[in-house]
Amino acid sequence: MVIGGDAAGMSAASTAKRRDPDLDVVAFDKGPYTSFSACGIPFYVSGVVEQSDGLIARSPEEHRKRGIVVHPRTEVLGVDLDARVATVRDATGSERREGFDRLVLATGAEAVALPVPGAERAEPARTIPEAERLRFALEHGGTSAVVVGGGYIGLELAEALVERGLSVTLVEQDDRVMATLDEDMAAHVQDAAEGVGIDVRLGATLEEIRERTVVVDGEEIDADHVIAAAGVRPAAGLAQDARLRVGDSGGICVDDGQRCAGHEGVWAAGDCVETWHRVLQRSVSVKLGTHANKQGRIAGINATGGAAAFPGVIGTAASRICRYEVARTGITEAEAAAAGIEVRAALIKDRTRAGYFPGSGPIWVKLVVAPGSGRLLGGQIVGTEGAAKRIDVLALAVWNEMAVDELALLDLAYAPPYSGVYDPLLVAANAAAKVA
Amino acid sequence: MVIGGDAAGMSAASTAKRRDPDLDVVAFDKGPYTSFSACGIPFYVSGVVEQSDGLIARSPEEHRKRGIVVHPRTEVLGVDLDARVATVRDATGSERREGFDRLVLATGAEAVALPVPGAERAEPARTIPEAERLRFALEHGGTSAVVVGGGYIGLELAEALVERGLSVTLVEQDDRVMATLDEDMAAHVQDAAEGVGIDVRLGATLEEIRERTVVVDGEEIDADHVIAAAGVRPAAGLAQDARLRVGDSGGICVDDGQRCAGHEGVWAAGDCVETWHRVLQRSVSVKLGTHANKQGRIAGINATGGAAAFPGVIGTAASRICRYEVARTGITEAEAAAAGIEVRAALIKDRTRAGYFPGSGPIWVKLVVAPGSGRLLGGQIVGTEGAAKRIDVLALAVWNEMAVDELALLDLAYAPPYSGVYDPLLVAANAAAKVA
Repeated sequence: MVIGGDAAGMSAASTAKRRDPDLDVVAFDKGPYTSFSACGIPFYVSGVVEQSDGLIARSPEEHRKRGIVVHPRTEVLGVDLDARVATVRDATGSERREGFDRLVLATGAEAVALPVPGAERAEPARTIPEAERLRFALEHGGTSAVVVGGGYIGLELAEALVERGLSVTLVEQDDRVMATLDEDMAAHVQDAAEGVGIDVRLGATLEEIRERTVVVDGEEIDADHVIAAAGVRPAAGLAQDARLRVGDSGGICVDDGQRCAGHEGVWAAGDCVETWHRVLQRSVSVKLGTHANKQGRIAGINATGGAAAFPGVIGTAASRICRYEVARTGITEAEAAAAGIEVRAALIKDRTRAGYFPGSGPIWVKLVVAPGSGRLLGGQIVGTEGAAKRIDVLALAVWNEMAVDELALLDLAYAPPYSGVYDPLLVAANAAAKVA
Repeated sequence: MVIGGDAAGMSAASTAKRRDPDLDVVAFDKGPYTSFSACGIPFYVSGVVEQSDGLIARSPEEHRKRGIVVHPRTEVLGVDLDARVATVRDATGSERREGFDRLVLATGAEAVALPVPGAERAEPARTIPEAERLRFALEHGGTSAVVVGGGYIGLELAEALVERGLSVTLVEQDDRVMATLDEDMAAHVQDAAEGVGIDVRLGATLEEIRERTVVVDGEEIDADHVIAAAGVRPAAGLAQDARLRVGDSGGICVDDGQRCAGHEGVWAAGDCVETWHRVLQRSVSVKLGTHANKQGRIAGINATGGAAAFPGVIGTAASRICRYEVARTGITEAEAAAAGIEVRAALIKDRTRAGYFPGSGPIWVKLVVAPGSGRLLGGQIVGTEGAAKRIDVLALAVWNEMAVDELALLDLAYAPPYSGVYDPLLVAANAAAKVA
């Protein structure tokens, strides 16, 4: 039994069925869809992706063709791990009990509710049905919108609404956007957001959501639409009710085989679990589709007698925000400070291509290193086309615990359309080697 | 004294002067320019880069302002290492002798002559003056061109001529283009070249270059212009005459500090030297600006009492050819076979972006691995925008001697504009892990 029909759950189900075709694999999801790309939703909201079914990698029908019994629109209300039975409620409201031998929990994440009057007026955009409702609403009226939350999803959604021609205000309670980056790097993202016309309100307290208006710090702001993007947390309630261990991060505790501690035959994967961070050397909650897919596959292997291990994460992420590419890996200066890790940092500005080559744009690279050894602990990149995926090079350097002086002499590719003769990463590594 | 005013030589000169401002640094180059981007020449020929001075990173005058005595248009005819004297000839033809204490050789590479009657009619395009002459000629007539040589430079130049509206034939004696890639990957580059209208003639013997015609396998082909791009070799004659050691690759032998064996106070860097290949575990001749810059810097550090080491190369290179991005690192299957190294290979086709995301294009990734261990020995990538610089990730994996099963679970960045949820590199690593 797999609970949750998105990336982690259906990866587990598909892997298990592929490895053991005789196994009965049953999956439940409370929504109508399976295996959809949540990361693509802002691009569907903007219209860059025209049809919502473009975001669906594999529908319930396609999974069924592969022999997986999928129950969409079916919520799992509770799990009895001793009796090996789950209580489920289908779309008609009728409840029933379903037995299982082995269980994979992939319940994902859930939005943090906005703690203000009128919160129910906010339109979420985390699932395909929510995004479909939002896009329908956008296509049928309104000229103004307020997005609550200045993280990457809030920024992506704000940009999507600007592209649809709306006047957009972004409300963030913190005094900066993109908390996943250090402030000096996030400032460029804010510039880009303001550059496309988003009215960015920082240190702003959302007080109330009214009909076509929100109140922020006592001021009324026009809002034909209010989009909530104020963060998510692991959806671990079902696991908690089943007395599975949940960590400080809010995610279900699993070992590197995605096994739930203390319960034979129970695995968990994806946004609902906590995951080992190799640089911080502790478990964290990172909610990204890339981990969900890999962890789901590992749960599927191990639930069918295999022996696969998830090696942990190092905090790599990328997005495209208002024409800037934005990426990070490892730890930021701020994360290092919060964890009590002493670091040095270097930040350089360069060009994405050879200076003389058309289409060259700015790129900022910040490296965070251990003092003395110069070991690379993290990197952040903001820049125009070609900037973000460079983060993977830094991810490998962090993963392999390389020092920046070695990185500075590394044999990276050079051609004028892709960089100056010293790649921006090498320039940054040289700068970091000097301060380490 | 620095002999050679391009990337390696002027990096050495600049580094030395910066580290020791009281040192007299003198540089000679037979051409009129210093520090130019040879890699940018095809883009100047096409007109993508409008002015040739865009390709010059730092002119003789700019170097002089930084205290380096630069003698352009001055050829070094011979070097007496015992007497510490060089014989030079300036633009007026007059010869003189110049003394030195320490010497950096950065004589670069020289074109291999075409062994056919009329070879002198071929127009080279390796230096700025040659490129200026070629572009002047192109702007003043002609509708057809033959490019001799199907390596990346020949292909880039052929594309440049197509962009100028010429009818272009590419003549290659080998039975495939892009010998730096395996044939299965090079085939995509050939497709792209033919796709933009280049008439690619493989296994073709150039027999004669006549006035406005070349003879290939007995056939006359119209050629208002004939461009030679049939390869280069290290310009090691001066070093050889000075009895410096030259290796089997044709490059000057240096240690990892760029010191010439057996001679105190003599360094060499750039296209004229041979360089340690970390995967092949032997010295090779790789003529790329990125190595020249780094090696020149290292020679400059060591020539001023420092202690820097060049860590060797792993064969990374990238180019953009006929709208495909092309890149490689480590060794190819063919190179492994030639070196007697047993390997396995996996080749996958994927998309550069999430399938539903606009602008997504094909990307082929080929990985070459050691049997058993699955250690990554090399990678090749061909694809549309965003493909080539992914090679740097494989370069780090090769550099760190990673196995593909570890690579397959690595925390790389994911966002729909940059890849599917499994990056093509991870898909390739999974495929390679299966065959290793």
